[in-house]
Amino acid sequence: MKIRVLTLFPKMFDCMQESMFGRAVKNGIIDFQAVDIREYSADKKHFKCDDAPYGGGAGMVMTPQPIYDCINAVDPNHEYLRVFMSPLGPRFDDKAARELSTHDNILILCGHYEGVDRRVIDLCIDREISVGDYILSGGEIAAMAVIDAASRFVDGVLGCSLSHETESFSDGLLEHHQYTRPPVFMGLKVPEVLLNGNHQEVDKFRRQESEKLTRERRADLLDKSGEESDGN
Amino acid sequence: MKIRVLTLFPKMFDCMQESMFGRAVKNGIIDFQAVDIREYSADKKHFKCDDAPYGGGAGMVMTPQPIYDCINAVDPNHEYLRVFMSPLGPRFDDKAARELSTHDNILILCGHYEGVDRRVIDLCIDREISVGDYILSGGEIAAMAVIDAASRFVDGVLGCSLSHETESFSDGLLEHHQYTRPPVFMGLKVPEVLLNGNHQEVDKFRRQESEKLTRERRADLLDKSGEESDGN
Repeated sequence: MKIRVLTLFPKMFDCMQESMFGRAVKNGIIDFQAVDIREYSADKKHFKCDDAPYGGGAGMVMTPQPIYDCINAVDPNHEYLRVFMSPLGPRFDDKAARELSTHDNILILCGHYEGVDRRVIDLCIDREISVGDYILSGGEIAAMAVIDAASRFVDGVLGCSLSHETESFSDGLLEHHQYTRPPVFMGLKVPEVLLNGNHQEVDKFRRQESEKLTRERRADLLDKSGEESDGN
Repeated sequence: MKIRVLTLFPKMFDCMQESMFGRAVKNGIIDFQAVDIREYSADKKHFKCDDAPYGGGAGMVMTPQPIYDCINAVDPNHEYLRVFMSPLGPRFDDKAARELSTHDNILILCGHYEGVDRRVIDLCIDREISVGDYILSGGEIAAMAVIDAASRFVDGVLGCSLSHETESFSDGLLEHHQYTRPPVFMGLKVPEVLLNGNHQEVDKFRRQESEKLTRERRADLLDKSGEESDGN
């Protein structure tokens, strides 16, 4: 899997070296690069990439030329799925992460400041993705979330390929609670059933806890899985 | 505003220096620190902070002791709002970001690996927050999203205090498109109305575009704002 992020702040992505994603890059499972849009500015003196919005308003808007040239330098033959992080896109979720992980080449454009000139989005982008109904100062942190969540589904990225099958959302339910040593902490005991080594009972306990947590906290997920499986 | 993030990967937060949030920290508007949970491990040889889950299963679970001691060292008198990044929490959104920005002291605990021993959450945490229905390899990127989105509402963080009033979700609608120079790019023109300098017409055009985008892409937001204002 090949991922290119186009951004005015490529150094922000250094932080991903620390994570599981960073290991996958080191191990050659994922080919990752953050590309500096600024280098593609036609303004070779100040490398300007933004300007005031037409029609007025607060903040600066990223100009189309540096982005257009950057995208076409990285992906001249449109072999990448070209994604733009934007609140206008459908909300990213577990299902979208799985789907994204099936693409071999992904290019992610990160806006910053007040936004990006719409024309370059209309000209170059295949898909807009939103990570949630909140505003970030740029697409960079959103891109990190998408990259981290999607790469978990790429073979070899997680230590154990089954890890993501037991996480929240993987089966439409929130995950059960986790416990580890010591058996008693500050007077609180680990649930007995987890200590007795009966795998069937453990599975049943965890399933019930998952269902209870989902019902109490995210009943909307139950409705959704009901819809998808024709009312069951 | 004082923010403390508790994490096994404090260096990940260096990337936030580059953003608008980084400037707010430099300017003394926000007092931010990423605290290394590992330093609070009672295991002074290997600084171990995780162990196998009781009941079996993939991955490792963060043990309660280092987290408990770290929280109590940072916040001995419970003066912080103590947040845990978790898919079990309600989904973070623009409204939650505004609310969070009204707290003077925020502590954010980031889990990693397969999860965190539930007992330390029950003992120490005030609020769980989820950034979306997807799984990240740790709470770090989620914490960055929450910090970035919430700090935008802290006075003095944005260059212009009105910036966030025109963004998507601020009025229950997606934001209109943005355009900047040049007036024609690759044959595509900026909408005429934005060039003619009539502010009333610009406002009307943008409002209509916002409503159209929201209707086409996120009709659920319209339903929601309808519910909140008693059906209008």
